[in-house]
Amino acid sequence: MAKSRKVNAKQGKMGQSNVYNLGTNTVLFFLTLNLVLTVLLMGGLYKHASWTTPKQRRTNREITGEQMEKKAITIDPNSIINLDHGDPTMFESFWKDMGEKATVVIPGWHMMSYFSNASNLCWFLEPEFANQVRRLHRTVGNALTDDRHIIVGVGSTQLIHATLYALTSVEERQPVDVISAAPFYSMYPGITNFLKSGLFKWAGDAKAYTGDSNFIEIICSPNNPDGELRNPILVSQNPGNQIHDMAYYWPQYTPMRGPVDHDITLFTVSKATGHAGTRIGWALVKDADVARRMVKFIEMNSIGVSKDSQVRAAKILELVSDGYEFPDLGKPRLFDFGRRLMADRWQRLRQAVEVSGKFSLPDFPSEFCEFTKELAETYPAFAWLRCEGDAGEDCEGFFGRLKILTRSGTHFGAGPEYVRISMLDRDANFDEFIRRISSQA
Amino acid sequence: MAKSRKVNAKQGKMGQSNVYNLGTNTVLFFLTLNLVLTVLLMGGLYKHASWTTPKQRRTNREITGEQMEKKAITIDPNSIINLDHGDPTMFESFWKDMGEKATVVIPGWHMMSYFSNASNLCWFLEPEFANQVRRLHRTVGNALTDDRHIIVGVGSTQLIHATLYALTSVEERQPVDVISAAPFYSMYPGITNFLKSGLFKWAGDAKAYTGDSNFIEIICSPNNPDGELRNPILVSQNPGNQIHDMAYYWPQYTPMRGPVDHDITLFTVSKATGHAGTRIGWALVKDADVARRMVKFIEMNSIGVSKDSQVRAAKILELVSDGYEFPDLGKPRLFDFGRRLMADRWQRLRQAVEVSGKFSLPDFPSEFCEFTKELAETYPAFAWLRCEGDAGEDCEGFFGRLKILTRSGTHFGAGPEYVRISMLDRDANFDEFIRRISSQA
Repeated sequence: MAKSRKVNAKQGKMGQSNVYNLGTNTVLFFLTLNLVLTVLLMGGLYKHASWTTPKQRRTNREITGEQMEKKAITIDPNSIINLDHGDPTMFESFWKDMGEKATVVIPGWHMMSYFSNASNLCWFLEPEFANQVRRLHRTVGNALTDDRHIIVGVGSTQLIHATLYALTSVEERQPVDVISAAPFYSMYPGITNFLKSGLFKWAGDAKAYTGDSNFIEIICSPNNPDGELRNPILVSQNPGNQIHDMAYYWPQYTPMRGPVDHDITLFTVSKATGHAGTRIGWALVKDADVARRMVKFIEMNSIGVSKDSQVRAAKILELVSDGYEFPDLGKPRLFDFGRRLMADRWQRLRQAVEVSGKFSLPDFPSEFCEFTKELAETYPAFAWLRCEGDAGEDCEGFFGRLKILTRSGTHFGAGPEYVRISMLDRDANFDEFIRRISSQA
Repeated sequence: MAKSRKVNAKQGKMGQSNVYNLGTNTVLFFLTLNLVLTVLLMGGLYKHASWTTPKQRRTNREITGEQMEKKAITIDPNSIINLDHGDPTMFESFWKDMGEKATVVIPGWHMMSYFSNASNLCWFLEPEFANQVRRLHRTVGNALTDDRHIIVGVGSTQLIHATLYALTSVEERQPVDVISAAPFYSMYPGITNFLKSGLFKWAGDAKAYTGDSNFIEIICSPNNPDGELRNPILVSQNPGNQIHDMAYYWPQYTPMRGPVDHDITLFTVSKATGHAGTRIGWALVKDADVARRMVKFIEMNSIGVSKDSQVRAAKILELVSDGYEFPDLGKPRLFDFGRRLMADRWQRLRQAVEVSGKFSLPDFPSEFCEFTKELAETYPAFAWLRCEGDAGEDCEGFFGRLKILTRSGTHFGAGPEYVRISMLDRDANFDEFIRRISSQA
């Protein structure tokens, strides 16, 4: 535009000084040139009036989700494919396609205080984040939020700690038992035990539990690692001692059976939208005293939770709800994207497993999904894969020889014949994973 | 601009169709009008070509730091003034004056992964944040960073937990004693004890410690609450068991005596730049095993630290360093702003205290500051104020009756004659605080 500006300025000056000596054709020429340049300038002005930055515009031109897919990244066949963690990078291409609408802009002087709302029970909770959490649960219909406190945490991991603290007391004569049905999320034992707390201790598989009545049961549903829908194993006199970890109860992974109504339910943006790096989770908590003690934990642990991340998460959740509340706007729809991709990946994985004859996978019945109003399949975020035959002695080792990092069943209270494999990695890594197990046929 | 655009378009069209029938004066008129409108458009385009958003521009017009100061906000004389926490909101006006340069823009698809750099010991540390931490320490000269691991945490609070974990072991037969010289930061006892950990336990005032040789000493310098510069109280055979909490070792609070060279040093953006809501702290750690165990703690506690906040903190630290590395750019300079404001506040507080005759404050000698290369005063972030006479029986209660919330000395291992008062609140609150204690004369 700098060049246009210069030409235009020169022409303007000429227009003023020499017009009396010019023929009609020359005047017409200049007027036409002027018109063209003015239109160009107006186009530039209009374009710049949107809220993007020059840097963003450059980035947008350089790479979009669509282009990235077309780019067909290939992975070195000797490289290590890390499917040990549930890093949800497959959602990146969705948010690229969403484009600038998903960008957050945070001025330097915003949200400097420790406090978001000093008069709220959860004083470090950004009100807009809470609004968007309630709205998304209403939109999806997966959890009741009325008459509940929302507690924000540094991922749902911090909230598990906070809940264990909230459900126990310094008055305990001995640590309260914490249990979960095997196979259980591999971090539960470590989270419970790593500080040798006198408040709670890990007591293993809920199905094998023979301890006293003072226990906390963690129910992960759909379950990490195996995708099963779960109910509490033990009938507790106090359902308030159940922690419902529902990180994966979203339409891309499983049919929605209606809103849950538990005393304590945990969610996280990392599995809902793919924003793991943002480290934001939330709890829906019925009892005010439990909520207060969770807040106390987070205060002692980290004096609250990043407001920058809460604002970003609020924007992300808002766009997810928008996609379904205002379908006419034509915005990309997260759960449609997620289901499509997961369906494709599970179909390819099942095919490769069948051809190989060396592995097996859990099966899930189709169920009616209250969200899509259709019969729907289950597509867990992890494949809970069993090695058959000799490979069953060390399934993680078997995949290690294929340079595929997985997590052994032994971390989940199960046997070494199992591994947990992330289904949420980027396309190129998933493709290479399928290629390598197909080569085992 | 919309109006100009419309006029201009109409004029352009006329220029094309009617030029043959127009007299020279009319042509001259239109050409001149066209020139004026083009210049207007160019001005608009140039303005919009910067990277601000329309919303930001509106905000900038609505309020700037300078305007805010001029606005002279007054506080209801019956309102509660909360100086209990060290909420560093006095820095807001500085960052308003810094303006758009301090804004961060985060596209929806950025930093979605758990990992910042999977091959780094601290795999969740954003490289640019680490760069700016090292650069700022070089600029200020307050800490050596060579041959150290940088560990990022959710504020320095999470890093204190991480360090206690890193310096102890599940093999301990009994919890390791944690001590700090009184008056000590009121959160140290709670942080150490609230989970009844079997790894460490609070053992009180380092000056009164009579326990065994297996202890961890926390040295806060300048000290919260009293602003004293401190050295370890106990000679440890293992200086690696000292945690140096140097949150306040910045030029706005105290003269710089050169770079510290400890095994473990903690800092936080909340006291350095005022961004408490961002929840970012960092540790400089010599020993790789200690650093690894700190990373392990943060992994188990929160699976890393918000990348959004790290990116924001990196931008903020960058601008602080820029102010001193490139003084010719004329950017606002944080430590100059901080010192000026703190000098003014301490002068007014000392005056009010002297006039009242009811309180006393610690005195500090002037010292040469290696950063400003001048003799400099000490202006602690908190006033450690002592009530004299009858009020000394319950100094917190005395201020409570003035509707000023402070924190009693009893929380810091000291007596009820002391209170800690934040010196970092917004101007209006600080002014009202001074007004109320002056009224006690």
